[in-house]
Amino acid sequence: MKKYCFGADIGGTTVKLGLFDTEGNILDKWEIKTHTENEGAAILPDTAAAILAKMEERKLNPGEVAGIGVGVPGPVSIDGIVPHTANLGWGYKEVTKELTERTGLPCKAGNDANVAALGEMWMGGAKGHKDVLLLTLGTGVGGGIIVDGKILTGAHGAGGEIGHIHVEDQIEEHCGCGNQGCLEQFASATGIARLARVALAESDEPSLLRGEEVTAKAVFDALKEGDELAKRVVERFGKYLGTAISVMAGILDPEVIVIGGGVSKAGWILLDYIRKYYKPYAYKSSKETEFALAQLGNDAGIYGCAKLILD
Amino acid sequence: MKKYCFGADIGGTTVKLGLFDTEGNILDKWEIKTHTENEGAAILPDTAAAILAKMEERKLNPGEVAGIGVGVPGPVSIDGIVPHTANLGWGYKEVTKELTERTGLPCKAGNDANVAALGEMWMGGAKGHKDVLLLTLGTGVGGGIIVDGKILTGAHGAGGEIGHIHVEDQIEEHCGCGNQGCLEQFASATGIARLARVALAESDEPSLLRGEEVTAKAVFDALKEGDELAKRVVERFGKYLGTAISVMAGILDPEVIVIGGGVSKAGWILLDYIRKYYKPYAYKSSKETEFALAQLGNDAGIYGCAKLILD
Repeated sequence: MKKYCFGADIGGTTVKLGLFDTEGNILDKWEIKTHTENEGAAILPDTAAAILAKMEERKLNPGEVAGIGVGVPGPVSIDGIVPHTANLGWGYKEVTKELTERTGLPCKAGNDANVAALGEMWMGGAKGHKDVLLLTLGTGVGGGIIVDGKILTGAHGAGGEIGHIHVEDQIEEHCGCGNQGCLEQFASATGIARLARVALAESDEPSLLRGEEVTAKAVFDALKEGDELAKRVVERFGKYLGTAISVMAGILDPEVIVIGGGVSKAGWILLDYIRKYYKPYAYKSSKETEFALAQLGNDAGIYGCAKLILD
Repeated sequence: MKKYCFGADIGGTTVKLGLFDTEGNILDKWEIKTHTENEGAAILPDTAAAILAKMEERKLNPGEVAGIGVGVPGPVSIDGIVPHTANLGWGYKEVTKELTERTGLPCKAGNDANVAALGEMWMGGAKGHKDVLLLTLGTGVGGGIIVDGKILTGAHGAGGEIGHIHVEDQIEEHCGCGNQGCLEQFASATGIARLARVALAESDEPSLLRGEEVTAKAVFDALKEGDELAKRVVERFGKYLGTAISVMAGILDPEVIVIGGGVSKAGWILLDYIRKYYKPYAYKSSKETEFALAQLGNDAGIYGCAKLILD
């Protein structure tokens, strides 16, 4: 009888770890440093050692542990193979095979944004739903798609890489991915700050943002103070993102659309601006689709990892 | 031991029927008229009678028949419930329940565009693949999405309704769905003809299309003759459709993208114009994703219906 499982969400700075019971209650969570030097050779040994030490500490019998779910910041195939992961230093890596060899436990792996969506479905903003679209608005724009309770992985592990869908022809700057006009260039924290700098440069209009460090948070703070320039920036952001989400919903027909990441800390006002542009462009079946804010924050990954191995 | 199954693709004019063996060989196909009068009350009784007559004719034992897969032109839930279907006259209808009661056979139902995608995956242009995006360019633009071998149905049965994703702000005309700027307004047969009429009205430039009935076929025929105005129309069509497909691929990461419907009879030249605008906007994982033409024509639906019941 399995009673426990582990989630290991591997990021470029830390590996977040969680011990769960099979009902989804988190019993323990902690972090270890991600050692990316030497092509990240120590990352999986360190992760395995941390889990084995926790089992020792809590006197868990391996027979009671369902296994380890692993989140990886990059494409990963269903059988746990990572072709390369820039910010961990890895080349080709058989993640689940290596981790099973080092722990004796069954392992499953998923892309970090996808497992975060699974976590929000299991215990967060999308709880009770099976068809979920999660957008993570942080430094970049990430996404995870759940179809009938399962991650949409895609043929190359790039399902839900919604930050790079094309939304604008009129732009000279290139996105980090090499293309031009990606959603991420308008709807990430850096994208919002970029839109604000453009708006500030275009006129001498007074604004609370002048003389300050221009960040997405500063833009939303100024908006809440009634700043007109900040309002125009958020309108523009809302138009790009709301329209793009209407397209995603037209393709996927989700039950719920969840917005997470640092930008989502702006709260419900953010959803108001997104929905203003979502609704006119959404197909009739999706016009009333529910929007929600993510609830698990940085823990969404470990929850989703745990769910991955329990499924 | 099951040896056979039936596919019944219900359309507004005819019900297409097919008898298959479980290997996917089509043994017989025929059509009956769709009687939409009296709220379509006769459609399912007629379909059931046609199948029972075929079993009688071929002396099939019900024990040898896996069941009936049914395609419906509208949203349908996984358990076979149709909320309403405008062009069949139906209101609320429990399709699979009624058809099972009338035939004694297990039934499963799917949306017609989705089952067509399943058919192309099983025996057509996407054979051998499990993650498929099918676009049907006909009077309208339809679509079907297969994820890991299964139809993406969506929360309201509207998964893959890609004809109504928003692609253009600058348009005064409304789409049949009520929105403005839908893909269908640019990439369907009627959309291509509309683009051509606009181009003809904008100048006096000589063109093979002048004085002719302007249809999508006429545009592609003129293109093949080197007509410059037709070329500009197809470029514009290719830009809307290629960019939109790059967005779909960014979300879904399919293995193969299949183009079907009447417009696809233009052949490989059509794919050239789509790919020209697809590739620069596609995310890196999807830039080399394979394009194919649909192969089953009007039979895709009955093949997909058969696959649906065999799965």
